[in-house]
Amino acid sequence: MILDRFKVPKGDEVHVSEEALRTTVSAIFEKMGVPPEDAAIGADALVLTDLRAVETHGVSNMLRVYVQGYRDGSINPTPNLRVERESPTTATLDADRGLGIILGPKAMRMAIEKAKTSGIGMVTMHSSGHLGAVGHHAMLAAQEDMVGVCLTASAGLSVVPTFASQPMFSTNPLSIAAPAGKEAPVYFDVATSAIAGNKIRLAMRMQSPLLPNWVSDKEGMPLSQEVLVQDRSDYYQLPLGGTREQGSHKGYGFAMMVELLSTLLSGSSPIMLERGSGSKSHFAAYNIAAFTDVEQFKRTMDDMLETLRTADPAPDQERVLYPGLSEHEALQERRANGIPLHKEVIEWFSQITAELELPALATR
Amino acid sequence: MILDRFKVPKGDEVHVSEEALRTTVSAIFEKMGVPPEDAAIGADALVLTDLRAVETHGVSNMLRVYVQGYRDGSINPTPNLRVERESPTTATLDADRGLGIILGPKAMRMAIEKAKTSGIGMVTMHSSGHLGAVGHHAMLAAQEDMVGVCLTASAGLSVVPTFASQPMFSTNPLSIAAPAGKEAPVYFDVATSAIAGNKIRLAMRMQSPLLPNWVSDKEGMPLSQEVLVQDRSDYYQLPLGGTREQGSHKGYGFAMMVELLSTLLSGSSPIMLERGSGSKSHFAAYNIAAFTDVEQFKRTMDDMLETLRTADPAPDQERVLYPGLSEHEALQERRANGIPLHKEVIEWFSQITAELELPALATR
Repeated sequence: MILDRFKVPKGDEVHVSEEALRTTVSAIFEKMGVPPEDAAIGADALVLTDLRAVETHGVSNMLRVYVQGYRDGSINPTPNLRVERESPTTATLDADRGLGIILGPKAMRMAIEKAKTSGIGMVTMHSSGHLGAVGHHAMLAAQEDMVGVCLTASAGLSVVPTFASQPMFSTNPLSIAAPAGKEAPVYFDVATSAIAGNKIRLAMRMQSPLLPNWVSDKEGMPLSQEVLVQDRSDYYQLPLGGTREQGSHKGYGFAMMVELLSTLLSGSSPIMLERGSGSKSHFAAYNIAAFTDVEQFKRTMDDMLETLRTADPAPDQERVLYPGLSEHEALQERRANGIPLHKEVIEWFSQITAELELPALATR
Repeated sequence: MILDRFKVPKGDEVHVSEEALRTTVSAIFEKMGVPPEDAAIGADALVLTDLRAVETHGVSNMLRVYVQGYRDGSINPTPNLRVERESPTTATLDADRGLGIILGPKAMRMAIEKAKTSGIGMVTMHSSGHLGAVGHHAMLAAQEDMVGVCLTASAGLSVVPTFASQPMFSTNPLSIAAPAGKEAPVYFDVATSAIAGNKIRLAMRMQSPLLPNWVSDKEGMPLSQEVLVQDRSDYYQLPLGGTREQGSHKGYGFAMMVELLSTLLSGSSPIMLERGSGSKSHFAAYNIAAFTDVEQFKRTMDDMLETLRTADPAPDQERVLYPGLSEHEALQERRANGIPLHKEVIEWFSQITAELELPALATR
């Protein structure tokens, strides 16, 4: 698969256990002034994301960004999560500049509790820091026999709408998760851009070229050749589809959908109108039992997912995946054998734990 | 724009008024045994879709298919729309093989009524005929100061999942609509496939080639060259993105999302497991007032949409659109000047009205 080029090369990886990584990440959050319970929620989000092999949103790329945010005061370690409007099915929250990976699970828990009594729970939240992997939050609902949905309009202005010359949206990822019986839960988490923003960072670190129609030049023209990125600011990101002919108006529309459900429905302004206004997010839980029999739902999920997993692959392909299958397999493998981190990431951990006077991250 | 190739050529078009088209389409539905009130709902769906210039889902392609369905008994003209499970926020409906374009508005009205009292209304429906343009149903909620969402997993097995060799999904379109103040409402309605199924039919009628990576061969291999379709059964459709490198796993995931929210959440089986099981759909209305101030929402919508509409275009592009802008412009223009139909479509109307002993469709 093309994205294997972004994996940590074998010789450059060091394995750490889930437990060791949770301990060190929690301790770093606490040193940033985050209360212990919240620090554990943040560590859970990052470590589960690494366990699922969603490296772009795990400790390697994100923890240093969060530490920087706490240090420069842009992230509030002790936010007052305030309810602005509420009903038995809905709530609108002001995150008070708290970190999204910590407040997101709280918002989703609110949605889940509402869905337990009302069938549906839907919570919007504005003014938070980065939400991390949106699928992490959606999965919290799936674990409660609900369909979970999480979207976020985050803070970077990076994606150029179809036919436009300048970026107007962030990568606006969206996710949905749902439980199965024997099969892995569906875990679908994608940017509405052609590639996730963090993939560009990873590609730079790996010195791996970006593929055609993933990015545009500074006038919004899609680049139809491979590009080896030296300076990220030379390029803008394109919506999913890349070009109009290949459906970029759909990727653009999905970005708009995220903006509507996250930004507009939390009563705030999109990044194109108000820079630095933080992330706006949408958390929804749909209680399966409100619609149909839960056990029948899971049996049908199993039948559908098994049908996909065992389908004949196209020529030259090994197998058919479904969204969440490889993440589930990685979770099991990494829980057993540890999480591979690039030696450069281990080096960063050595420096930060020394600076913060914490025990070093234990490696295997 | 590339899709201009699918427009009716100037010399081949005949204009009809909205009113004349509504009259004739309603009368045709009534001749199929549909009660007058339902016939008017069906005509509203088709004619509004043509007014919005969504030709793929208007009278030209779809009405003859519906007439065929009533005649062969696959569509029930007098369905008993049955509530299988219900709560103040949710409902699950059995459509009893009624036509989706007629029952969809009824399901969405239920969702809207629930959202008026509960903030959210979400209705799933199985066992219907074709739902038409999903955006039509979503717009009903937008007209009530709500965000409307409508998705449908329809009956044709046409889209090949990433890496698979055989189709497993229908084109599974999804839509979202939301109101603005002065700007056009957002109206986003797209297939999760690289192109809508009806575009292939239109391309065949126009003898216009399909672009690279829109379809695969019969082994699931994406075709990277233009294809002039002679026999539709020679090709399968690809998910949005086309190839894995360009993000087809995202299009595939969106198809799965539609399956989860429509099929699984209505307690029914996906088409890959049960052929001929009809369309399954999802209708949701989110009451803006439950989350935030409606007037502020619309002001922000106006600011955002105007910013997009007036943004500098990329080189060689005329202007930047937002989802719903061209549909809104077409609606105004066609209400004033009539709806252009291909002369071949006018010919079909002549035949069917003669057969059914109805007055001919009035042309301008």
